[in-house]
Order: sequence, then structure tokens, then C-alpha cells
Amino acid sequence: MFSFDLPSKLLNDAVEELAKLPGVGRKTALRLALYLLKQPKEDVERFGNTIVAFRSNIKHCRCCNNLSDEEVCDICSNPRRERSTICVVESIRDVMSIEKTQQYNGLYHVLGGIISPMEGIGPSQLEIELLLERVGKGDVNEVVLALNTTMEGETTCYYIHKKLKDFPVAVTTLARGIGFGDELEYADELTLGRSIKNRQPFQVG
Amino acid sequence: MFSFDLPSKLLNDAVEELAKLPGVGRKTALRLALYLLKQPKEDVERFGNTIVAFRSNIKHCRCCNNLSDEEVCDICSNPRRERSTICVVESIRDVMSIEKTQQYNGLYHVLGGIISPMEGIGPSQLEIELLLERVGKGDVNEVVLALNTTMEGETTCYYIHKKLKDFPVAVTTLARGIGFGDELEYADELTLGRSIKNRQPFQVG
Repeated sequence: MFSFDLPSKLLNDAVEELAKLPGVGRKTALRLALYLLKQPKEDVERFGNTIVAFRSNIKHCRCCNNLSDEEVCDICSNPRRERSTICVVESIRDVMSIEKTQQYNGLYHVLGGIISPMEGIGPSQLEIELLLERVGKGDVNEVVLALNTTMEGETTCYYIHKKLKDFPVAVTTLARGIGFGDELEYADELTLGRSIKNRQPFQVG
Repeated sequence: MFSFDLPSKLLNDAVEELAKLPGVGRKTALRLALYLLKQPKEDVERFGNTIVAFRSNIKHCRCCNNLSDEEVCDICSNPRRERSTICVVESIRDVMSIEKTQQYNGLYHVLGGIISPMEGIGPSQLEIELLLERVGKGDVNEVVLALNTTMEGETTCYYIHKKLKDFPVAVTTLARGIGFGDELEYADELTLGRSIKNRQPFQVG
């Protein structure tokens, strides 16, 4: 980007660190560094320290592997959540998306990824054993597989489904079909085909 | 953005700090935080500490006000630079742009902004006194005003020009005209008008 060095090593180091963030090139990193320079020292100190503290102190819930400040996360320790249903998701973002709908009151299980031979991620790198352990304790009667409908997601669903075969739990998955607000004309064939095949009783409201 | 709190205060704090960066919203901040979470602890520590050290330790060159690790910046302390010419710029970015051209071998003077009544920036907030002091020492025989051609830039040029009236220095400015590669058809009237009025002898090469 720059055909010459920055005038200061401190600035150069800051730019290099900022440029490591995803989606931030050297030019944006320089803009961010010059912006930080205009902020009060205390603010920039808080910025740096907060991020370091976040990385150093955050925990994974020992029940569901969700991010948490405590050993057990807020959802797992909430007595008003239904403990008999576990929704299996890829990452914390999916937990957040589902929580936002306010349509689910069970627990979660965050795999921390999905099986992806292309990226060298096998079942052993995911928190699948922990899930089986939870299910093995016997309080669970439904496992909802809420993974993306990609090849990797389907593979992971299939793998977990197979592993759960011997447990007395219902394994369910998210309803597939035409999204609300979608136009049939633009729906892909596979989705539309499955939707007509799996048609449901008409409900008012 | 989120209609509910993040599952962790540590995560929430990190997201809030990252979202203070210009051009980073809460959604991007969350993406950055989750990215940092996947990096080794030491890397994130270095990230935070480098930025704090940058903000705390960087200096402004006491000659030209450019960013510097030392009391006097690399350009001012370079014995091979011509000390009789000072190029006045708004910010360090402009120093970098001009350095990149490799067409200038004098010194700089970084104002740290331009006069902007709209943003409440007056001459006293800029390093104009420092410039007059430098010029007053008598080694300087040319001051190049290299400010943007906006209203604020022109105002600042005019102000500095007036202040320099009593010093025995030539005050020059960047050549204005049609840029290399520009098509006349698309040049604005003012630029084209001035270019034809200030026409120059044709040079080969």
C-alpha cells in the first residue's frame, strides 16, 4: 500500500495490529490509528484493556459451550428455561438469532463449528461428546438440530443424528420451506419442491 | 441492533468498545470480537497493548508537529533535507502523500487541522505560531502552502499568507490545473478556466 515506511514505529506497529482485523486493510488501519490518536488517552487505554480482558477472561459455559462470564451461562442457569429440550447450533451468533425470535425456551448446545473436511474440521474438534454426555444424563427428551442447510451443516446433522440413535430422545430439525414474505416465483426449486411435498394444515393467524 | 443483551458482560464491553471505531457498527463489532476470540491470547494482548502504547507514547515533532517516536521527527533530523523550504500541510496523511511522490526534499509543517468556523476550529488551535517561529529564525526562504482547495483550505492559506507578509520568504502554493489523465470535457469550469489563463510553456517529457 505505502511505498515508504510510516514516519513512526509506534504508528507503524499500531497500523499493523489494526490491519490484522478482518476486513481492515492498511489504509483503513491508518485511518483508525489516526482516529484513536485524537481520542483521550484514557479512552484508548480502556479500549485496549477491555479487549485484552475480554479475550483473557471470557469462559465457555461448561454445560452448553456458549460464551459466558461464569462457569455456567445465563441460559443454562436460568430456572425458567425448559431443561428437556436442547437446540444444537454452530456458534453463539445462532444462539443470539434464535433468542431474538423469543420463540424458544429450551437450552442450547454450541458446537463451536461444523464438520468440514475442506477446512480440516472433524467431529472431534466440535463439542459433540459434551452433547452426548448431556443427553446421556437422561433429562433430555428432544434435540433440535438447528444448523445451516449447507453441505457441512447437513453432514454434521447426519453425524449427530447417528450418534443419538441409541438415546431415547426425539431428534428434530428446523422447519424448511418458503420464508415469510418470499415470492414463489423466486424460490429455488429444491425449497419449493420440499414445501409442496411437506405441505401443512392451513392455520389462521 | 440487538433487542436483547449479549450473553456476557465481557463480550458486551468488548463489542461496545469496538463499535466506537469509525465505520464500525455493533454488528461488525460483534464479528470483530468473535474473531479476536479465536486468536491466541498472546496475539490479542499484543493487539491491545500495542494500541495503548501507541496512544500513550507517540510524540509530535517539536519542529514540524509531525507524528514521531522521538522529540524531533525523521524528516526534520535528516541532514540531507533542504532546510530552507517548508511545506505547510493539514495532517500527517498529506505528508505521507507528498513523500510518496518523491518530488519534494524540503521540510514540512503539520498544522493539525484547518481553520473551520463551522467546526469551531480557529487559527489558535492550529500550529501556526510554531510555523511563524520557525520562519522567524531566518533559515527559511520559501513556504509552500499545500492545503486542500476547499473553502476552509483557502481561508487557512489566506490567513497564513497574511501572517507571513512581513517575513522575507516566498509564499508559494501547489500548481492548480487539469490533472494528468483527466479529460477536458469532464473538468469543472473553474479548473479549466484557470488552467487556460495560467497556461505554461510546453515541455517535452
